[in-house]
Amino acid sequence: MVDRIRTRRRGRAAAQAAEARRQPDYRHLRHPFPPQSVLPEEAVQQIHDMALKVLSELGLKILLPEARALFHAAGAVVDHDSQTVRIGPDIVDQALHSAPRSFRLRASNPTRDQDYAEGAMLFAAGAGCPNATDLARGRRPGSLRDYEETLKLQQRFDVIHIHGPSAEPQDIPSELRHYEMMRAQMELGDKPMFAYARGRAQVMESLEMIALGLGLDDAELAADAWCYTVINTNSPRQIDVPMAEGLIDFARAGQLCIVTPFCLAGAMAPVTVAGALVLQHAEALGAIALTQLARPGAPVSYGGFGSNVDMKSGAPAFGTPEHMKMSIGSGQLARHIGLPWRSAAGSASNAADMQAAGENHMGLWAATLANATLTIHAAGWLEGGLTFGYEKFINDVEALQTLAELATPPETDPASLGWEALADVEPGGHFFATQHTMDRYATAFYEPLVADLANFGSWSEAGGQGSDSRATAIWQDLLATYRPPPGSGDRADRLADFISKGKAKGGARPAD
Amino acid sequence: MVDRIRTRRRGRAAAQAAEARRQPDYRHLRHPFPPQSVLPEEAVQQIHDMALKVLSELGLKILLPEARALFHAAGAVVDHDSQTVRIGPDIVDQALHSAPRSFRLRASNPTRDQDYAEGAMLFAAGAGCPNATDLARGRRPGSLRDYEETLKLQQRFDVIHIHGPSAEPQDIPSELRHYEMMRAQMELGDKPMFAYARGRAQVMESLEMIALGLGLDDAELAADAWCYTVINTNSPRQIDVPMAEGLIDFARAGQLCIVTPFCLAGAMAPVTVAGALVLQHAEALGAIALTQLARPGAPVSYGGFGSNVDMKSGAPAFGTPEHMKMSIGSGQLARHIGLPWRSAAGSASNAADMQAAGENHMGLWAATLANATLTIHAAGWLEGGLTFGYEKFINDVEALQTLAELATPPETDPASLGWEALADVEPGGHFFATQHTMDRYATAFYEPLVADLANFGSWSEAGGQGSDSRATAIWQDLLATYRPPPGSGDRADRLADFISKGKAKGGARPAD
Repeated sequence: MVDRIRTRRRGRAAAQAAEARRQPDYRHLRHPFPPQSVLPEEAVQQIHDMALKVLSELGLKILLPEARALFHAAGAVVDHDSQTVRIGPDIVDQALHSAPRSFRLRASNPTRDQDYAEGAMLFAAGAGCPNATDLARGRRPGSLRDYEETLKLQQRFDVIHIHGPSAEPQDIPSELRHYEMMRAQMELGDKPMFAYARGRAQVMESLEMIALGLGLDDAELAADAWCYTVINTNSPRQIDVPMAEGLIDFARAGQLCIVTPFCLAGAMAPVTVAGALVLQHAEALGAIALTQLARPGAPVSYGGFGSNVDMKSGAPAFGTPEHMKMSIGSGQLARHIGLPWRSAAGSASNAADMQAAGENHMGLWAATLANATLTIHAAGWLEGGLTFGYEKFINDVEALQTLAELATPPETDPASLGWEALADVEPGGHFFATQHTMDRYATAFYEPLVADLANFGSWSEAGGQGSDSRATAIWQDLLATYRPPPGSGDRADRLADFISKGKAKGGARPAD
Repeated sequence: MVDRIRTRRRGRAAAQAAEARRQPDYRHLRHPFPPQSVLPEEAVQQIHDMALKVLSELGLKILLPEARALFHAAGAVVDHDSQTVRIGPDIVDQALHSAPRSFRLRASNPTRDQDYAEGAMLFAAGAGCPNATDLARGRRPGSLRDYEETLKLQQRFDVIHIHGPSAEPQDIPSELRHYEMMRAQMELGDKPMFAYARGRAQVMESLEMIALGLGLDDAELAADAWCYTVINTNSPRQIDVPMAEGLIDFARAGQLCIVTPFCLAGAMAPVTVAGALVLQHAEALGAIALTQLARPGAPVSYGGFGSNVDMKSGAPAFGTPEHMKMSIGSGQLARHIGLPWRSAAGSASNAADMQAAGENHMGLWAATLANATLTIHAAGWLEGGLTFGYEKFINDVEALQTLAELATPPETDPASLGWEALADVEPGGHFFATQHTMDRYATAFYEPLVADLANFGSWSEAGGQGSDSRATAIWQDLLATYRPPPGSGDRADRLADFISKGKAKGGARPAD
């Protein structure tokens, strides 16, 4: 009997110890450091002014007649033969006046709603990868299984704040893919969602699925941004049909357009950082203007994903000094126009190695110094976006969690300064057993996800696994122990009929 | 004849093209970003005040009687039985008053002299590693060959600003080791040098070798810091004999002491960041005071290498949030007392993998945000300092060069904004062939050292090497093509007689 009580007490103590484990809240983060600069303030103004000159004198080629008509109605000079729209500074000014400085980005789980605003620090996983790779199964074209697995992995980490298109499910025909992608996000996750802007038909069905899946009426859907899309201009100075439709349709639906010119200095943009930023800024302002012409006040994000190419091969580079300078400069331009903005990390590496980690860390730090509202491709992006790497994802999450920890300053109350402990311990002694340590050790430090702190001997005896193969075991375990979020089944049920009818009619063709 | 002229012209053009390659100057760097904070200003003051209270009420245990006598003469309360020295705030104030805010750190090559001062950004390689490892030869105890090789590798990169003890030449008996280490630095490199503080006899001989090797008379040697040592206190609150002797002897010789308590929160220091900083600050102030008692005005550097331990195993961790917070907090404390300071990066990883790269990047970024004057262990440090990794060194240098590039802001002159190029290129076109690009492409971008930007197909066909095995080829090539710096032979010649006599007398025993 006594033994049973003791056992129970030990069990309770163990339970209490388990409860005392660290439960950091990574769901809502603010940047810990003020935004930094690489450009003098007068250069920011010069880049902004030259971007306005690019828009008004050179113009953008916009392939969608409806978009040109919107600009024409607003007073832009439209040449329908060349599809060129010359956009005066007044149109840009008006757009920057009506675009909201902040807005809510909603999730099916309200605790995952986000304020998309200056100072917020949001991360999204590597996105838009046609391939997937892991050490257990090798590199392959992305499939629905990969998409679903990478969604589950995103869902397992609070530091990934919004869902993204990670690995592309290429085994699903393109006219049906949006059904699976929207369904999977609502069934496997509970964060703000992504929808591709691949033409009006798919966008409209995607928004309808969000309303259905989350049980929103039209007013509720329109009142907040429940999903986002990323609009990459076709640099230089061009916006194609699906992108222009996306800008219009997301804006009209009150959903978030993240405008992101992908300006690679020396290739689709001028070879200088300042010149590439001029082009990025012009294209971003033009696209932002279109959202505001479609619906004044629509949620829109400034964005920049600028880097350089290798001038020998033309291959894009990431995590380079030029990438970093463009990110930090982009942050300055975003603050200049007063809008929240997205940046990007990522890697050109073909393997989950030191290059991959180094490039991503540099990109993440540039985004941090630039106070990017949202950093996409923050985890798992390999080969310049051609592959989603499972092991790299796990290792990158370690970096994101480390950044998240920096958002909480160290305790500086009198007890934390530790006078009693300092007075307790003899010179040359140690603090392991002091009350100050015992009271805090279970929650004092960040617990590494994949970093192995064993000494060389223990590590070697345990198989000498590198951080890549350790990550394999981690993602395998995360998938094996994954449980769908509350409401998952209900959301899937509400979508089932719509999807089967959609499939029966042959889906919705993406725009060309 | 015409053909010969053409050939010559082509030769000249090729030579000009070669000259047009990027020649970045990484020798003298300034921090690109202002120093950041993790502690509120009042907490900085509280930590400083509590450190003064630790010194005056608890005191330091100082094992060297001569050091205790210096403190006693200055008015400290000395208990010779317990070897405890209680140091009043007036002694610390006096030391902070006499310690120089900046000084020259000299090199045999004057173009490598450094201003050791707030705002400077200096890097040193991983230091003090008993082992060395590379993919070609495996892990082994450090040897003179390893020490010389890692010196040559340091010498090949301008971004490594000062020499350090990298891999320890354990095959040289400890009483002779200083001969080889000082000789090797002067023969194989031309940067500011390191000397161990392993007791008075070795220190005196090391300084004598510097004077001999560089041809300095006593006044020239004393006028500037030609070498540095690192003084690690024996935390908590203890300074052993060789460290105390080093503080006194380097100060009297006008050479640089870098005072670096190694405060691992939860082990040799309180478990909280603030508490560990109190201990670090107290020990650093006490050691700095000793240098100034030995010789007012002697060059001295504040230093901190704080991190946490894994509370399960007691193993030290690096690149963690706690490490970063301690680095940034240390920078605040250094600015509070107005001294230049050293930080540290490094890694606990057992392999040159993503963990190794990630931890080092985080440490480097913390040091950057903290505006560390000098960051040691910035390249090549594995296993928490137990091993110098050749491949990691090469990959870490890529990170250092990237940071160095950030010290140069992007060009923002009118031409760099690229109006003509923007006007030249049609929408959807590219900038590869514009004059703006042609004029700049050879020097526009940082050229990666080890990053491979090839696409997956080309990379796989070329063998699919990760950044570790690519680094093997790089260090092998750097060693194969290494040439000694000018004056190398002369310096070695001037040392030869001293060394052979020193060896004949049995060397100089290190202090216990």
